[in-house]
Amino acid sequence: MYDLLKGLRVVEGAAFVAAPTCGLYLAQMGAEVIRFDAIGGGPDFRRWPLAENGSSLYWEGLNKGKKSVALDLASPAGREIAQRLATAPGSDAGLFVTNFPVDGFLAYETLRRLRDDLICVRVMGWADGAQGMDYTINAALGLPQMTGPADDPRPVNHVLAAWDLLTGAYCAFGLVSALLARMRDGRGREIRAPLSDIAAATMANLGFTAETLAAGHQRPRIGNDVFGAFGRDFMTRDGQTLMLLAITPRQWSKALEALGLTAEVAAVEAELGVSFATDEGLRFTHRARLYPLFERAFAQRTAAELGAAFDAGGVTWGAYQSLEAALEDPRLYKGNPLFQEVRHPSGLSYPAPGAMATVPQDRRSDVRPAPRLGQHTDEVLADVLGMSAGEIARLHDDGVVAS
Amino acid sequence: MYDLLKGLRVVEGAAFVAAPTCGLYLAQMGAEVIRFDAIGGGPDFRRWPLAENGSSLYWEGLNKGKKSVALDLASPAGREIAQRLATAPGSDAGLFVTNFPVDGFLAYETLRRLRDDLICVRVMGWADGAQGMDYTINAALGLPQMTGPADDPRPVNHVLAAWDLLTGAYCAFGLVSALLARMRDGRGREIRAPLSDIAAATMANLGFTAETLAAGHQRPRIGNDVFGAFGRDFMTRDGQTLMLLAITPRQWSKALEALGLTAEVAAVEAELGVSFATDEGLRFTHRARLYPLFERAFAQRTAAELGAAFDAGGVTWGAYQSLEAALEDPRLYKGNPLFQEVRHPSGLSYPAPGAMATVPQDRRSDVRPAPRLGQHTDEVLADVLGMSAGEIARLHDDGVVAS
Repeated sequence: MYDLLKGLRVVEGAAFVAAPTCGLYLAQMGAEVIRFDAIGGGPDFRRWPLAENGSSLYWEGLNKGKKSVALDLASPAGREIAQRLATAPGSDAGLFVTNFPVDGFLAYETLRRLRDDLICVRVMGWADGAQGMDYTINAALGLPQMTGPADDPRPVNHVLAAWDLLTGAYCAFGLVSALLARMRDGRGREIRAPLSDIAAATMANLGFTAETLAAGHQRPRIGNDVFGAFGRDFMTRDGQTLMLLAITPRQWSKALEALGLTAEVAAVEAELGVSFATDEGLRFTHRARLYPLFERAFAQRTAAELGAAFDAGGVTWGAYQSLEAALEDPRLYKGNPLFQEVRHPSGLSYPAPGAMATVPQDRRSDVRPAPRLGQHTDEVLADVLGMSAGEIARLHDDGVVAS
Repeated sequence: MYDLLKGLRVVEGAAFVAAPTCGLYLAQMGAEVIRFDAIGGGPDFRRWPLAENGSSLYWEGLNKGKKSVALDLASPAGREIAQRLATAPGSDAGLFVTNFPVDGFLAYETLRRLRDDLICVRVMGWADGAQGMDYTINAALGLPQMTGPADDPRPVNHVLAAWDLLTGAYCAFGLVSALLARMRDGRGREIRAPLSDIAAATMANLGFTAETLAAGHQRPRIGNDVFGAFGRDFMTRDGQTLMLLAITPRQWSKALEALGLTAEVAAVEAELGVSFATDEGLRFTHRARLYPLFERAFAQRTAAELGAAFDAGGVTWGAYQSLEAALEDPRLYKGNPLFQEVRHPSGLSYPAPGAMATVPQDRRSDVRPAPRLGQHTDEVLADVLGMSAGEIARLHDDGVVAS
């Protein structure tokens, strides 16, 4: 938690990964982020993984540091409260993050009637408004056919919802950018971020589409080989798998030194009449010639020996390890100052991270857990919408809100 | 291109994916982004995929809409110019994006002596400053063991550099957030974004780490099955592979209807004494019981029949298609207003995207290509550093700058 965005009030009406991570990043940089949740929870409130008591570890991970107002979103009165929250006054408010449909009761033009300078960041599936999620859009981009062992043609889905995550962070960027613009010109804006556009643009930004246009077909499946450079997984004498990578000349020469392959590779270069040192693409082109040398060098040494030699030599490498091993790894989790032991709504206590970046000039404040559903209903209705205790009590009685 | 960030001047000294995408997102939202490049190009200037003439389609994809100043970054004079650019005056300047080492000539404390309120966003590999790239850090988080067919234990790397991409977008968010903070308190900040921390935090945000702590081991490998819900690839009668997904009750009921499985699944529910409708986790738990029904339903119909039925029924699904097919797909590329045919530094003309989000209230301006190396050297030295024509000529003569 940092306070870079202190004073901002963001309202979030969102489920699944992309929009809630947007709100999470904003909250952990100091914004007040108020979620409205369906009474009993929205469509991702029971999403796996679950704690033994049925609480969602996923939901409580994605909603840390936010406030929760529980509303009957099926009722006109509940929907009106959601609209009023999203558009409540204040120069540092009027900031709304959602993945609700573009044309529903949270449509921009509807909300704009309540607050003309509203900034609304809207995560969408397909750009035309059709249902689309990370998995279905990823399938349409050729990536599952490019992923996985070259000797197996089955498409491989990614386990990490990469498009959701990229979209969430890009939306956080979009929201603060639109706020800067509003501070300058006073205008509200809707920032529509369809996963399909973010994915299509990214495949172009990385050169995949230009490559495909030039070749007439997408990049072939090459297993764990790093495209256009030297990199792959190799197995050590003791059966460990290590990832080795050499893109820059320095990464390449260091890897050869550490593996004792400098002379052997020089002989290959002489034989082929090429220089691998300064052209990583040649290492890729001739990788079938190079791999046996590396496979042998790895097979002669243990992971411990190689790791020590690689670290001493400044080689870019990594061991494949399980997440349970990662949790003991001081480079990732053990003692990492991003993480703090926190008691979560599930009732469990376990380490959770704050802001993903570190600001050495600022103090990192405590990691805040996710709210209980409706934990802040009364507080928010009073503070943000100025409701009296009587009004709030009536809404409870009518089942419009819960806490 | 939008002008939300109009007036901001950002300086970028960066290679590979994360930091350049940060600059790309800023440029495409209207900031002036000035790269300094090593004369002849930095370590990613020849990164694959390449055009036939050897130009990098990757580099020109990641650097669209930026300016380029070519400097001899090995010389003290060239390094001094880089430092002066990063710290040049202006209330909407002093914004620097880099992946240079934390303790080199572009260290924050060094730059701060030139501009006390500098905002520097720094992409790092490992948080301790050690070399790490997307591939090596990904290997340390258990994901490659969770990815790929369940009947094959080999680790599977992702082809999409997901951690780089997330880091780049998060850095763009971090930079604008730090600017908002500086506008309030006048203070500069360094925003350090190590891939290792972003990856470690994300695995926690999504619940992977809590799940692993609770179970004692990471999630087992389950192929293309969507964890904790119903989703997988299925093959049609004509041999096409479709991704089907049902997380919400509505997605589930729609899928059953479109496949004509409502009655059969109700029989399974009766037999097992469960209701799949409202608990997507039960669909996952009993997926081995459900899959044969779905496999048969898919195998009886062609992809065209299923696609039509799914679209008519509002099912969440997607066909696996190649990137060359995606390029013809109007939902992704063909006619997508994000894209415009642009002539790139490689000499090739092909469609390239502007800002990844859409702002319906604003006009989308033209997509700008990447610069040639050093294309803006003289212009930037004159405009930003106030150098005279004579000074600039001398720097050219001395080989400190190039254009």
